[in-house]
Amino acid sequence: MKKKGSGIPKGYSFSTTGAAIKKPGRKDLAVIVSEVPAVMAGCFTTNSVKAAPVRLCMKRIRSGRGQAIIVNSGNANACTGKQGMRDAEEIIYSTSKILGIPPSMFYICSTGVIGTPLPMGRINDALPALAGNRGISSIDDVAEAIMTTDTFPKVLHKRVRVGGKTGLISGICKGAGMIAPDMATLLCFLLTDIAVEQKTIASLLREAVRRTFNRITIDGDMSTNDTVLMMANGLLGNTPITGRSEYLGPFRKALHEVTYGLAKLLVSDGEGATKAIEVYVRGAKTPADAEKAAFSIANSNLVKTAIYGNDANWGRIMAALGYSGTRFREERTDISFNDVKVVKNGLSNDRDREAAEALKSKEIRITVDLHAGRSSAEVLTCDFTEEYVKINAEYRT
Amino acid sequence: MKKKGSGIPKGYSFSTTGAAIKKPGRKDLAVIVSEVPAVMAGCFTTNSVKAAPVRLCMKRIRSGRGQAIIVNSGNANACTGKQGMRDAEEIIYSTSKILGIPPSMFYICSTGVIGTPLPMGRINDALPALAGNRGISSIDDVAEAIMTTDTFPKVLHKRVRVGGKTGLISGICKGAGMIAPDMATLLCFLLTDIAVEQKTIASLLREAVRRTFNRITIDGDMSTNDTVLMMANGLLGNTPITGRSEYLGPFRKALHEVTYGLAKLLVSDGEGATKAIEVYVRGAKTPADAEKAAFSIANSNLVKTAIYGNDANWGRIMAALGYSGTRFREERTDISFNDVKVVKNGLSNDRDREAAEALKSKEIRITVDLHAGRSSAEVLTCDFTEEYVKINAEYRT
Repeated sequence: MKKKGSGIPKGYSFSTTGAAIKKPGRKDLAVIVSEVPAVMAGCFTTNSVKAAPVRLCMKRIRSGRGQAIIVNSGNANACTGKQGMRDAEEIIYSTSKILGIPPSMFYICSTGVIGTPLPMGRINDALPALAGNRGISSIDDVAEAIMTTDTFPKVLHKRVRVGGKTGLISGICKGAGMIAPDMATLLCFLLTDIAVEQKTIASLLREAVRRTFNRITIDGDMSTNDTVLMMANGLLGNTPITGRSEYLGPFRKALHEVTYGLAKLLVSDGEGATKAIEVYVRGAKTPADAEKAAFSIANSNLVKTAIYGNDANWGRIMAALGYSGTRFREERTDISFNDVKVVKNGLSNDRDREAAEALKSKEIRITVDLHAGRSSAEVLTCDFTEEYVKINAEYRT
Repeated sequence: MKKKGSGIPKGYSFSTTGAAIKKPGRKDLAVIVSEVPAVMAGCFTTNSVKAAPVRLCMKRIRSGRGQAIIVNSGNANACTGKQGMRDAEEIIYSTSKILGIPPSMFYICSTGVIGTPLPMGRINDALPALAGNRGISSIDDVAEAIMTTDTFPKVLHKRVRVGGKTGLISGICKGAGMIAPDMATLLCFLLTDIAVEQKTIASLLREAVRRTFNRITIDGDMSTNDTVLMMANGLLGNTPITGRSEYLGPFRKALHEVTYGLAKLLVSDGEGATKAIEVYVRGAKTPADAEKAAFSIANSNLVKTAIYGNDANWGRIMAALGYSGTRFREERTDISFNDVKVVKNGLSNDRDREAAEALKSKEIRITVDLHAGRSSAEVLTCDFTEEYVKINAEYRT
């Protein structure tokens, strides 16, 4: 997979600027524009409290088309009532006029503090500069502008060969706090120049989100603003990929790799995290059982603090399995930390010291074999540290 | 309500000693004995991974009778397989011989690290001293001996007038970590000299546990060892209380006060906690809706870190409501911190500064009015601090 700095899909331009939305001195406003109208798909938070921009995007996406996305960080425009909706519409209207793109082709996303109206004066003042920077800013600048408590920008690219030509999928995202089952304050933008039929891209995106972003958890909280938007502008000139296309497989695989890669970046940058954790449950009776077990472990504060403290405290994993609702037998369960099997048939395997050594790694894989069936599930998370508490106790102040 | 040091119910004696179960230098073994066989009732963890002593108690409690309880801290005897069950039975057998009480009348509880067999040699060596201390130790000593990460022993007493006589209900408990819906590593022993019919005491205990211990949460984890045992030895000499007795009401009220009081002590001593939090949700469509909403808020790491940081970040409460599954409308919701209404009709009430001031209190009440119906629920919890992480990262090491 190619990283930051390598080419971008054809026909996309970027612009960023600073509007001092939360505080001055950083880029917090960005726009992504496709030269031509693109096929679009989106996935949104399932939280019943939805931010104004989310509600707006959910309406727009029914058309399956779009050409531009404007994003701000520093303020979520959530729990802001009718004013919030008017503000989102005003930003779209003003930006669409400056950029010459119809408002109906414009999407908007926000991330940051909940419950405070957007500083519309400062945003309006910044729009001319935003328009002026078009083409000067890079995709990496956009990734930076959308960060909240993220410690690094998250960008990935993946090439795909389609009909003798090489297309590209680029993805950027931000996360860090409130990442939870069903992707909490996660913003992700996926851009491709490969032509894909709308129905196909919508179903591929849903599948990718389900298999990657919806399988990560940082603190069990779910946000009001989660949005994943994908644009396919077709400028590669290929025959649009459909459900029966021979290029469906490679495209699906590349999309999965980009979203999975971004999901891994998200957990490695979980608030205060020092370690990335993969929880892999196998031998479950059903996929639902495997998933319940994996999420129960990945959401346990006690498991996550133990991993942080290099403590092979597998009893906490057993306890999390026990209250997960998964059907299994304690006396058949095996648990490993990386390659060290600490529990065999539900009992200590006397390898706690080796396991504690293994836990010093920055990448931890917890493998649980329930020996109850053939289903498995993987959930990504991170360890749980004093720094998480510190960040979240001081987030607004 | 009377506190520590005041009289105890007639006919109970206590004994404690140190067996160096986890480490030397503290009392970690205790026994509670009634002079005469007592009517007994119990509530146990719903975690499917149950410690050996829990499984043993669940069998014994079917008889509805008992005379003694032996408890150890420092080791949970959980995930210890057949050996764990043999060890629990051996302790009961040896202690019952020394104390001259039939093994069938003996209950056993353990709390501490999971997955390590009990140090049977050290426990057996300590049993003679345990027998020797009978009557020398106090109920407060027992409360101290069962502590794990608790910072203070928890004992409450409550007098009840029954048929012209004054009986007593005494309760002791330990908690601190893993307290969660359905009372995680919670041990609680309730002792009374008031005669109560077995069926009646079993139903009163279930009700009290449901309304108090099952309504507290510290970290969302649920343990393998939760046990609440109640003994009623009848030595007050009253006519046994039944479901139709005129003393049912006062007895039920007193029992509720003892368990509610202990539940409040548990959350105020949550691991690393600096504040006790009451989450009160009213105006919900159904009791289940109210409970879901209250638990969702009380289990949110983000809400609990904000309270710790004196940050009136009500957006996190809205988000927690939104993913709780409760039916409500954002635009009808009111939220208060203590007496400061920060949200009115789903929008900021511009009182964040006063609310931040209110949050400096050690007792926080979050009131949410959904204006959707007439049901309410209250859940007790505590704030979430760096200290929690520290304690749980270093628990075993």
